[in-house]
Amino acid sequence: MSASFTPAPPRASQQDLATFDALFRACARIGATPSGGVHRLAATAADGAVRDRFCAWLRAEQFEVRIDPVGNIFGLMTLVPGAPYVLCGSHLDSQPNAGRFDGAYGVTAGAVAVASLARQLRARNEPPMFNLAVVNWTNEEGARFQPSLMGSAVFTGAMPLEQAWTSQDAEGITLKQALQQIGYVGEAMEALPVAAYIELHVEQGPHLEQHGSKIGVVEETWAALKWQVHFQGEQNHTGPSLMAVRRDALLAAAQTIIAVRAQADKHNLKIHSSVGRLEISPNSPNVVAAEARLHIEFRSADEQLLHETGEAFQSLLQQIATTTGTTVSIDSAQFRPRRQLAAPLAALAWQSCNLLDIAALKTRSVAGHDAISMSYHCPSSLLFIPSANGLSHNEAEFTTDEDMHHGVAVLVLFLYLISTQPEAWHKEMTAEEQAC
Amino acid sequence: MSASFTPAPPRASQQDLATFDALFRACARIGATPSGGVHRLAATAADGAVRDRFCAWLRAEQFEVRIDPVGNIFGLMTLVPGAPYVLCGSHLDSQPNAGRFDGAYGVTAGAVAVASLARQLRARNEPPMFNLAVVNWTNEEGARFQPSLMGSAVFTGAMPLEQAWTSQDAEGITLKQALQQIGYVGEAMEALPVAAYIELHVEQGPHLEQHGSKIGVVEETWAALKWQVHFQGEQNHTGPSLMAVRRDALLAAAQTIIAVRAQADKHNLKIHSSVGRLEISPNSPNVVAAEARLHIEFRSADEQLLHETGEAFQSLLQQIATTTGTTVSIDSAQFRPRRQLAAPLAALAWQSCNLLDIAALKTRSVAGHDAISMSYHCPSSLLFIPSANGLSHNEAEFTTDEDMHHGVAVLVLFLYLISTQPEAWHKEMTAEEQAC
Repeated sequence: MSASFTPAPPRASQQDLATFDALFRACARIGATPSGGVHRLAATAADGAVRDRFCAWLRAEQFEVRIDPVGNIFGLMTLVPGAPYVLCGSHLDSQPNAGRFDGAYGVTAGAVAVASLARQLRARNEPPMFNLAVVNWTNEEGARFQPSLMGSAVFTGAMPLEQAWTSQDAEGITLKQALQQIGYVGEAMEALPVAAYIELHVEQGPHLEQHGSKIGVVEETWAALKWQVHFQGEQNHTGPSLMAVRRDALLAAAQTIIAVRAQADKHNLKIHSSVGRLEISPNSPNVVAAEARLHIEFRSADEQLLHETGEAFQSLLQQIATTTGTTVSIDSAQFRPRRQLAAPLAALAWQSCNLLDIAALKTRSVAGHDAISMSYHCPSSLLFIPSANGLSHNEAEFTTDEDMHHGVAVLVLFLYLISTQPEAWHKEMTAEEQAC
Repeated sequence: MSASFTPAPPRASQQDLATFDALFRACARIGATPSGGVHRLAATAADGAVRDRFCAWLRAEQFEVRIDPVGNIFGLMTLVPGAPYVLCGSHLDSQPNAGRFDGAYGVTAGAVAVASLARQLRARNEPPMFNLAVVNWTNEEGARFQPSLMGSAVFTGAMPLEQAWTSQDAEGITLKQALQQIGYVGEAMEALPVAAYIELHVEQGPHLEQHGSKIGVVEETWAALKWQVHFQGEQNHTGPSLMAVRRDALLAAAQTIIAVRAQADKHNLKIHSSVGRLEISPNSPNVVAAEARLHIEFRSADEQLLHETGEAFQSLLQQIATTTGTTVSIDSAQFRPRRQLAAPLAALAWQSCNLLDIAALKTRSVAGHDAISMSYHCPSSLLFIPSANGLSHNEAEFTTDEDMHHGVAVLVLFLYLISTQPEAWHKEMTAEEQAC
């Protein structure tokens, strides 16, 4: 530990780590799958159950719990009344049959770190400059309701509440109805002043493991282009109808899936691409498909390359429509720019790792996280812990207890530095910094 | 009218055609879609409602109604107690958002033709050699429950009742549960002796229209190879996971869909092929697909070519699996051989058209029909009426009233010839004729 602190800074105790273990495991049991993962889509009964468990824990630990209208859960630890909050957290919802670490780790680690630091600050009689809080954002995953990162986008005002509420799942149930079902449509709450946002997450890639590092300090995120593409063909019988007259929307979709992959191969490591979801109608064995809707993603650190790819791909979609006798439309297009995270916060995170002698790595995120949404609202920081083989959105996703504990330890110290050394990072964000 | 009949043979009256119009329209209103089609999947509430309507009509017309354990509905018109039946019919279930003619035409035309002919035979005091009956087969389409042609296959013994009952829809509901829900699990009934089976159906292809013919006399059906192919990949995040390590089951499926189509293009008009249904898991926008299940069909008049295609395609599937890092299995394979329909019955159908001066065409069926199942059980005949542009399994499927009336008229005379001229066609089927 550096000699520059007198007394030694607060740290996560063995008791804190045991508390974290218990809370993390309790959450992982809710919506658990037989293969060790979780299936806890946003605003389902399982999501409701884990929310109830989390809120009960917060109240037992003397947090003030607030639910906002889009279902975000805030656990407030007010140490200096009237001061803004340093907020940390992530999300408890999951992809279908996904890992138990993704999101839930950041929420539970954040809650335990805030509780620990608040207790220590009170014991030391050392009031910080900011209050502390933890958050569980609604529908980060975008699996049941689109788009992803919904709760944080509503919080920052980037998405109108009404748009989030009216988003429908595949059965036509709106997010508002689903949240009402589980009792998580909160009252409109007065604006929560947030000075900084911190998120701890499993990496979802192999870099930390490959470098033997325990904490990834994310400096920036890749840009992403997300499209929903719709092909309209014509229902027909798969047997007697002549091959020449078929207007097969599924054939058009297949050509598109291959073309999406080809873009990534063409630009080698500079683009990641995928089609993860494909909806087909009527999707019956004996019927030529009339409709296909693809959820296409291109991601890159190079925004210019993404724009060029998007342009070129529009022509390609038209060619596919022409050759398959279908018509095509891009029904939804979302561009998420490349984003730098707050460098002064990253520096404090780096300092925290050094003080604790935990090997850190400067890195970038390809995936979207609520920290990206929040970075337009306040200085934000995103830290990674290792994930075995980089496997993610998979029940076999795995991180050791030891690696999770490193994250909790870093978070306690990081939150301490943030909340007691505002001169190192705190200033009003400029208009440029807040711009999309 | 030929002079060889004294008195003139029975014929469909204007009243019969009006009765047909009313019954056909009544059925088309049940499960009707806004675009003029029907959505009446097997054993759904809509199927239950149309069955109720049909049974009420049969009872009002003095048919004896019997329901068998798989839900097939038989309307019996017993004219010569103890004699076997000449059975005609088709199916009232539909594909999703499909046409109102497919199946329902054959059931309603058959019911009206049987009622009309029975009435006329009684009035003429001319007992036939056979009794008459109409049938609605359960789950011809195979849209909700697989495989297709289920009710007729259970009737002939080609499929065990238990297998049909335990077939599950996408929600895991069994056919038996669904039939119980609508009240159509009948008592085991004593074997119904059937001497011949006749089915009238819309063509689902353009040949009659192209030739200006009003009745197609089907001589044979194409062979069909139907596979369910399963690719197993690995769930992963669509963003950060490296392209090189992805094992994308949807990419494998896309390559397969294109390869299936390529087989048809390679052999030009000799093979029809399709993938109509594709199930993807987890089918979430941000998740690389772990599983894809394709319902693949190849159809041809050339059985040898189909076998060769199947062989070659197995190697191709392995190649696709290797290049995409997935594993592949063929979970279900069904081969339906090319099948000749009873030539003596076809000759009587042809004679009926000639006697009524209705333009007929000798043709073949690419699609499967219950008449194919029944052809292994008794001499069977399949007749087509025109369908505009050959469009099928589509709400826009269309046949004029006049063309439907031609079919009813031919059917009355055809049933008359069958039931009064057994020497022209009736003999015990040989073992060879009954063999698959």
